[in-house]
Amino acid sequence: MAAVAAAMRWRLLLVMSAAVLGASGTPQPPNILLLLMDDMGWGDLGVYGEPSRETPNLDRMAAEGMLFPNFYTANPLCSPSRAALLTGRLPIRNGFYTTNAQARNAYTPQEIVGGIPDTELLLPELLKGAGYVSKIVGKWHLGHRPRFHPLKHGFDEWFGSPNCHFGPYDNRARPNIPVYRDWEMVGRFYEEFPINHKTGEANLTQIYLQVMGAGLAGSGAGSSAFGQGQMVCSSPQEALDFIKRQQAAQHPFFLYWAIDATHAPVYASKPFLGTSQRGRYGDAVREIDDSVGKILNLLQDLRIAENTFVFLTSDNGGSNGPFLCGKQTTFEGGMREPAIVWWPGRIPAGQVSHQLGSIMDLFTTSLSLAGLEPPSDRVIDGLDLLPAMLQGQLMERPIFYYRGNTLMAVTLGQYKAHFWTWTNSWEEFRQGIDFCPGQNVSGVTTHTQEEHTKLPLIFHLGRDPGERYPLSFASTEYLDVLGRITPVVQQHQEALVPGQPQLNVCNQAVMASPGEHSVRCSLVTLTRRPVPCSPSGTLNSQLLPGERNWAPPGCEKLGKCLTPPESVPEKCSWPH
Amino acid sequence: MAAVAAAMRWRLLLVMSAAVLGASGTPQPPNILLLLMDDMGWGDLGVYGEPSRETPNLDRMAAEGMLFPNFYTANPLCSPSRAALLTGRLPIRNGFYTTNAQARNAYTPQEIVGGIPDTELLLPELLKGAGYVSKIVGKWHLGHRPRFHPLKHGFDEWFGSPNCHFGPYDNRARPNIPVYRDWEMVGRFYEEFPINHKTGEANLTQIYLQVMGAGLAGSGAGSSAFGQGQMVCSSPQEALDFIKRQQAAQHPFFLYWAIDATHAPVYASKPFLGTSQRGRYGDAVREIDDSVGKILNLLQDLRIAENTFVFLTSDNGGSNGPFLCGKQTTFEGGMREPAIVWWPGRIPAGQVSHQLGSIMDLFTTSLSLAGLEPPSDRVIDGLDLLPAMLQGQLMERPIFYYRGNTLMAVTLGQYKAHFWTWTNSWEEFRQGIDFCPGQNVSGVTTHTQEEHTKLPLIFHLGRDPGERYPLSFASTEYLDVLGRITPVVQQHQEALVPGQPQLNVCNQAVMASPGEHSVRCSLVTLTRRPVPCSPSGTLNSQLLPGERNWAPPGCEKLGKCLTPPESVPEKCSWPH
Repeated sequence: MAAVAAAMRWRLLLVMSAAVLGASGTPQPPNILLLLMDDMGWGDLGVYGEPSRETPNLDRMAAEGMLFPNFYTANPLCSPSRAALLTGRLPIRNGFYTTNAQARNAYTPQEIVGGIPDTELLLPELLKGAGYVSKIVGKWHLGHRPRFHPLKHGFDEWFGSPNCHFGPYDNRARPNIPVYRDWEMVGRFYEEFPINHKTGEANLTQIYLQVMGAGLAGSGAGSSAFGQGQMVCSSPQEALDFIKRQQAAQHPFFLYWAIDATHAPVYASKPFLGTSQRGRYGDAVREIDDSVGKILNLLQDLRIAENTFVFLTSDNGGSNGPFLCGKQTTFEGGMREPAIVWWPGRIPAGQVSHQLGSIMDLFTTSLSLAGLEPPSDRVIDGLDLLPAMLQGQLMERPIFYYRGNTLMAVTLGQYKAHFWTWTNSWEEFRQGIDFCPGQNVSGVTTHTQEEHTKLPLIFHLGRDPGERYPLSFASTEYLDVLGRITPVVQQHQEALVPGQPQLNVCNQAVMASPGEHSVRCSLVTLTRRPVPCSPSGTLNSQLLPGERNWAPPGCEKLGKCLTPPESVPEKCSWPH
Repeated sequence: MAAVAAAMRWRLLLVMSAAVLGASGTPQPPNILLLLMDDMGWGDLGVYGEPSRETPNLDRMAAEGMLFPNFYTANPLCSPSRAALLTGRLPIRNGFYTTNAQARNAYTPQEIVGGIPDTELLLPELLKGAGYVSKIVGKWHLGHRPRFHPLKHGFDEWFGSPNCHFGPYDNRARPNIPVYRDWEMVGRFYEEFPINHKTGEANLTQIYLQVMGAGLAGSGAGSSAFGQGQMVCSSPQEALDFIKRQQAAQHPFFLYWAIDATHAPVYASKPFLGTSQRGRYGDAVREIDDSVGKILNLLQDLRIAENTFVFLTSDNGGSNGPFLCGKQTTFEGGMREPAIVWWPGRIPAGQVSHQLGSIMDLFTTSLSLAGLEPPSDRVIDGLDLLPAMLQGQLMERPIFYYRGNTLMAVTLGQYKAHFWTWTNSWEEFRQGIDFCPGQNVSGVTTHTQEEHTKLPLIFHLGRDPGERYPLSFASTEYLDVLGRITPVVQQHQEALVPGQPQLNVCNQAVMASPGEHSVRCSLVTLTRRPVPCSPSGTLNSQLLPGERNWAPPGCEKLGKCLTPPESVPEKCSWPH
């Protein structure tokens, strides 16, 4: 993947457009800016029908860009979706799943042993081949141990944390989650980076914005006076804005802006608290919307908007609009996501594409933008969406909905077939855990795992976006659709080589050594397609004691090194 | 209400705008065009988040105009909503309700004896005072008997029918619904105006469009070649386009375009059938969307857009978007409606108003546009929305949700209080009649009538538009809100003088005579606020045999006069 070949391919792509010239006078591929929302649903944006319509900047982004109403994440939960985005591969392939029990959603809590395997090729690693400089701002979520650090997987810079902002913790049973600047911890949530559960106040979105935008005259982003967290970020290093630096160096850049204010515990900074009609959640959305507006304005002020591809989507379900259920489920409310692309002058304004899109497409599309080919030594699930964006093409492709290692459903064209239905267990449901609040479709939103692999429940998502009326098994429409979907699923399942599952083993200390992996793997036979659960591979590396969130690099400078507890690996418990 | 005074008031209103001069050189008030959809819900428009986004013209109308996400109809059923629109008064006041049983929705089926009382003042009657010429195209729905004919209530022209396009009937037990041009029947549904249930084909939307738009060079609306129904409308009278005629005469006009393709049985004309992603319903929506585009284009082609106030809304729930339940219920899905105002050059483009709006406001706002005062001898529930539209004001006002004579709920600001909850009876529900398909909020979507008048269920519609999480009775928020809502409801109920209920008595022959009204009115004591059920008033007039849909005026010319059955008045049955 030589940079020369990449530049060549990019030149071809540019034939029909005004070329942007880099430092060497050769055409420079566009900057790539992925704005990843956290637990924000399809129904949270005004342009998608949120009744309070409090997202004027996101709505403007859609009006100036292209909207994808049929865009999906790769999993109804955060970590696997993010792994899929950055690898272009389904979680079942890249290892971001569990085989501990059938059809379980899993992610990367602090005690997770696994993370993104070294064998996976991440988007920023590949973009290096075309000269990109990459930064992640915000939530990484692909593992806590040093080997999983984003700067070991292609990113050049990081400001953010390896996990959600859960807490506060006592730093004895669990450490507060560290916040990193590049290689080193610069503080912890609830300590240097306060989050007030009572008032909902936290300055993190401003920090994530300003780490990116600070120091830029005229952007309006660098001058506001937000509190304590700001201090941490006011060092000269951070004051040099990433975008400005890359532009000055004439490096194409990849910025992955993975903010988390809309993830529980929801927060907003003081100027936004109480400003929304939607309560604290709406305050967080408003602050994000405002931030996106500032980012887009900045790109325009810097006159690089026409050479910057901006895509906004989310990791899993939130407000579900007209759809069924939410996060954790493989109904539309759990996996259909807001999606807007904005590339003034290249992608025509005010368009709607009905292309079935996936978060994994951002991987392939970004490579295509960079003039790079996706890796040929592995299955890539992402599609290059540029033909849909630039020429309005519609490409047929399936969308697969997994929970853990179980293929729950597939969408092909307008039809969705459910092979398994499950929301959560009766036990959880009786405890008040409800992934479908206010919704109940008999035989569809089931509290036992119901198998429909022989006769899937099929819905027409155009006529019935809410998945309320399964097609009659006796109808010719059903038989036609089944005849088209069956071979697609067969082909997928026959060719599937599941990756080593990363989300099976937990350890409060995350000090794994080979001898400690006495996890009973027999339980994986519960799954429909048993996946070998060998504790070798990613789990057997020798680790230094005290690594991970107890004592990350940089903890000494801050006096924030904690003593980890005894190392006791155990099977992670994934209840749903 | 002299025309002189009206012109004076209008002149004042015009101070800040370019005046349009009428024939006499005096300023001419704007034309008023109300586009009333039928069973089309909040969630049916792209701009409100319909996932297939097949309403480019309605979305453009919103982009060029102002959107009201918090706009309500006055009843979850068609006839009372329409009566409320044209009178500016709640159905409980104008008589469009029943007292036959508690909290029952009622409308005007063929056998209904009642209709719009002569004592009600309708918008077109009042607009005459400012020189307007008024036409209704489409569904009237305010009664079938001659006394209820729209031309007896202020309209100057009519093309359409007194009822929905139910059928086909056998013309023995029931006549097919007549279609009128002005005073006379010009045919019947399923006869001269075919509707093919199998294919879904009917040309009615095209007819309703072309009756309005035909004969206008350059509009593109008059030249298409639609089938049989077209013939009926191609007489010279109808070929003269209403708008063009009024413009030529320099008369301000009021056009009430009340089409019904999205009401079951849903239909579309051949060029639209099969073109939608949403099935036949979507085909109907697409044809309506296309028609609205043609209407707006026509106004622009004629250069009268800046002097024509266009408002689109719907009569009751359809696709409910993120809301709870639908038509027939007083949850948001039953009564929150799409609402767009379009008045280029006067109302700024691309705005969203969070004003709580009501279909009854169209009455008061239209009078205000015409420079007229609303009647002072009766309670008018409609608000003048011009301050919201022109100056962005937000006016506090309650929205009342009725079923029959029962006040089910009220919304004030962001809060909605339910005093009664009911979807439909267990009996109906077990028969498969479901007004909340796929939805079920425990204790809220009840199948028995549940009284909460002492401690209403209160929802915050901003945080919880889906009415899923009632506020805790113990919260200070609950107590605060209750303290604000209670006096508003008390004041409303104490001042309320219910109108004579029009929807109590049915008669297959509709040949009412005083002696025939032996309806047991004792049953009205079932209602919470007993309403006098005297069969006098609207019901005791002597009628000629053979009137109404059996033998309307004009039937002789067509050889379509039918013999009515024996006159047997009975209490109408309203199951929900």
